[in-house]
Amino acid sequence: MTREAKEIRSDMGWSDTTRIRVQGMDLMQDIMGKLNLGDFAFLEIQKRLPTPSESIVFNAMLATLVEHGMTPMAIATRLTYLGAPESLQGAVASGLLGMGTTFAGTAEGAARILQEALCGDAASTPDSELPAMAEAIVKRLRDTRQPIPGIGHNIHKPVDPRATRLFELASKNGISGKHVKLMNHIAAAAERALNKPGQLPVNATGALGALASEMAIPWKLCRGLAVIGRSIGLVGHIAEELRNPIAREIWERTEHDASSHVQY
Amino acid sequence: MTREAKEIRSDMGWSDTTRIRVQGMDLMQDIMGKLNLGDFAFLEIQKRLPTPSESIVFNAMLATLVEHGMTPMAIATRLTYLGAPESLQGAVASGLLGMGTTFAGTAEGAARILQEALCGDAASTPDSELPAMAEAIVKRLRDTRQPIPGIGHNIHKPVDPRATRLFELASKNGISGKHVKLMNHIAAAAERALNKPGQLPVNATGALGALASEMAIPWKLCRGLAVIGRSIGLVGHIAEELRNPIAREIWERTEHDASSHVQY
Amino acid sequence: MTREAKEIRSDMGWSDTTRIRVQGMDLMQDIMGKLNLGDFAFLEIQKRLPTPSESIVFNAMLATLVEHGMTPMAIATRLTYLGAPESLQGAVASGLLGMGTTFAGTAEGAARILQEALCGDAASTPDSELPAMAEAIVKRLRDTRQPIPGIGHNIHKPVDPRATRLFELASKNGISGKHVKLMNHIAAAAERALNKPGQLPVNATGALGALASEMAIPWKLCRGLAVIGRSIGLVGHIAEELRNPIAREIWERTEHDASSHVQY
Amino acid sequence: MTREAKEIRSDMGWSDTTRIRVQGMDLMQDIMGKLNLGDFAFLEIQKRLPTPSESIVFNAMLATLVEHGMTPMAIATRLTYLGAPESLQGAVASGLLGMGTTFAGTAEGAARILQEALCGDAASTPDSELPAMAEAIVKRLRDTRQPIPGIGHNIHKPVDPRATRLFELASKNGISGKHVKLMNHIAAAAERALNKPGQLPVNATGALGALASEMAIPWKLCRGLAVIGRSIGLVGHIAEELRNPIAREIWERTEHDASSHVQY
Repeated sequence: MTREAKEIRSDMGWSDTTRIRVQGMDLMQDIMGKLNLGDFAFLEIQKRLPTPSESIVFNAMLATLVEHGMTPMAIATRLTYLGAPESLQGAVASGLLGMGTTFAGTAEGAARILQEALCGDAASTPDSELPAMAEAIVKRLRDTRQPIPGIGHNIHKPVDPRATRLFELASKNGISGKHVKLMNHIAAAAERALNKPGQLPVNATGALGALASEMAIPWKLCRGLAVIGRSIGLVGHIAEELRNPIAREIWERTEHDASSHVQY
Repeated sequence: MTREAKEIRSDMGWSDTTRIRVQGMDLMQDIMGKLNLGDFAFLEIQKRLPTPSESIVFNAMLATLVEHGMTPMAIATRLTYLGAPESLQGAVASGLLGMGTTFAGTAEGAARILQEALCGDAASTPDSELPAMAEAIVKRLRDTRQPIPGIGHNIHKPVDPRATRLFELASKNGISGKHVKLMNHIAAAAERALNKPGQLPVNATGALGALASEMAIPWKLCRGLAVIGRSIGLVGHIAEELRNPIAREIWERTEHDASSHVQY
Repeated sequence: MTREAKEIRSDMGWSDTTRIRVQGMDLMQDIMGKLNLGDFAFLEIQKRLPTPSESIVFNAMLATLVEHGMTPMAIATRLTYLGAPESLQGAVASGLLGMGTTFAGTAEGAARILQEALCGDAASTPDSELPAMAEAIVKRLRDTRQPIPGIGHNIHKPVDPRATRLFELASKNGISGKHVKLMNHIAAAAERALNKPGQLPVNATGALGALASEMAIPWKLCRGLAVIGRSIGLVGHIAEELRNPIAREIWERTEHDASSHVQY
Repeated sequence: MTREAKEIRSDMGWSDTTRIRVQGMDLMQDIMGKLNLGDFAFLEIQKRLPTPSESIVFNAMLATLVEHGMTPMAIATRLTYLGAPESLQGAVASGLLGMGTTFAGTAEGAARILQEALCGDAASTPDSELPAMAEAIVKRLRDTRQPIPGIGHNIHKPVDPRATRLFELASKNGISGKHVKLMNHIAAAAERALNKPGQLPVNATGALGALASEMAIPWKLCRGLAVIGRSIGLVGHIAEELRNPIAREIWERTEHDASSHVQY
């Protein structure tokens, strides 16, 4: 059988004996010693350098995702490291796999709603249309029994301090626009619809979804920001596990408790 | 059965209704808007903030690990994303799993050799002892038929420009010490032992291992630096795949080529 | 802070100095030497042994999932094995991660539709109601622009021979019931609705979804059957890779092709 | 740049409109309804069908690897499923990643020692040479401070009942040969060398390594048997988690305990 080949092309980077180019830039002269890791992440995703303002906000966004304490992902990473200490990459991968809809889906969901509503043309949408747009979004989600992503929080009350800080940084740095406004209108509309005044402000994932949208990061990549941040946090948990190993006790305690009904 | 519980303790972070603490710091005030992502990674691993000099060198170290073009890891990530686009975390994890001994083991290996030789007490080792130490290391590795990690490169010749740049930045920022010297002596000893003068300079992984050692990062965590950097790069490949999908063609081309001998 | 603990209980297995119990059975006497691997898988999922008829059909179902040639999953596994040959588990995991909605979602989708329609009460649904049920399902999916899972195939035409064989084995062994009938009615209804007579018969994933439903396997576990089968296939690909390594050539060829536009 | 392509070839399987061939066999007629899953695994790895005797022993070997209760792998799988219930494949992969040197390395290690000692030429090694061979192996491992794989057990005493059963089945089925004998001689030599008479019999992993070697399965694939077996067990744990969810309690209990020292 013959087949017609399609083009395979990538522009991420290439190298030869003396040169290494990444995103069209010279790795040694333009990146190393000049870009911090968050800016390099922006470059990888957006194919351009962030502005100084974007750099501050984007690094702050990633910062909210690095460390959430002893999460299911951190426990999985530690247990996997116990079983395969020679494969640190496997331990981190094991934890990252828990970054699914339960924990990482809402920033994605918030960004999707905002981006689908504003259709990549936020500039031409007048502010006056945003409240009705928010009402329609909340109504549609409630009619189809879907959760409203990006609002309220089970621990942080009355407000999620990360959202407050993210919006503050965005505002100071001129990143705050229509997506942020629409997100806030959605929260207000949800509070009215659910009769919970002041109880459902935008949370950290809502703020992340809104700010990613302001930076034109596609909603399909929002989970990628969580993956980037958390991979750092999970390496951190392995660092702590090396200093103070607790994975074996977590395992044995759980195994013991789960078998306590057994009549030997 | 009863069992005696041991303590389970973690100090990575915690939160309550209004506060979020990470590594003993206030996430909103001390980290967001102030720390770049590389500095936060340093904090997670070392439990302290980097100095300004360490910040520059550590971010540069991570920068060498982000993007290596169309690696096996990048291809695995793209193919996995094709199969499970709803689980971006799985696609990144799939690629990270290839960061094993073949590609990520040498920085770890170089750091291990340096740290075991200098025994956490580099300060008290006089420079004059380093050449003999290097000779002994090279001899031991050759006697046991193990590769000498961190020297030479199959593409970048005569020198790996990343190593040059890393050492330059380290030197400018006062991070360069005994581990860097020992690494250079190992390269020189290997060139003599293998009779390849000028052909086996320290490469990027050797420089990474030496600089991680200067910063007192345990060799067991060196692979973690690669995992952190590459998780960013792999999200970057998914971003490019979204703009210009090539995974299906990579698959179908490979499948076709692998079956071209079949007599239907 | 105090907290009220909930019970953690598992009945999968336990052991002491001389005994090993799995699913309430003696591993050495009741399972080893008596159960084949497919029957053990049935026991693990359903918490009871399969009947002889169920054993034949369940093993045949798993057999359709083991080996599909040079799939994206197989390529990912081989590339990951190239990078981390010391971590075979990582290479298999890397490939399994591609078993998402694109390739493994349709058996799940078919099972879900059948199980939600028959509501766990297939016995009381008269055959005469099935055609209308199928029409309603097809209409609902088309109205909401969702694909109809489990019918048609892009390569196997006019019929998917695995579906034919699965239904034949099920029929011979008395496993074929209302779910199989409903699946066939759905295919017929889809052919009418899309005006493609004889072109959209039940495919392998539709047959798998229907037979899993006949065995009362929840649709949420259908992807688990694919994962079980494919983990075997991926170990097989590693076995072939050991005999005849091709991963490096796949990588280098892809990297070369993807960079062929670069102007050095 | 031009490059010279090497051949990429795979013989795992292929299909066209009406046929599906796996390992040179017809999937529908030769495999489905005829081979159990363990036999299919043997075919995938060894490229030939097992004999009836091999089928019994190989299925029994895999049976020892499926279910070990609430292991670190099972906990990781459950925690990952909590975070990403839409990606069952990710939850299984997460657990499989813990099948590293700590838990899955010893069968591999035992097989390696046996295969390297008998050099693929067990037939020509007289029984009378095996005791000295075992003594030399034990001496070499002790001299280099390596553990002796495949002997003793921390729970199952004085004997591991799985090893007893595996060797019994192998003996009955004519699979027991030089590798099994050498493994037993190694256990005896270790008991002498460590002065622990009767306390270090061959355990399950030693028996697995010996029987895999009898079947000419390369030691590099032994971990693959564990991965195959455990992928079934991990799907079983997800099945139990669906019936009786405990992952959230495991997480919250662990998080609570790990933070109990925090002074809020």
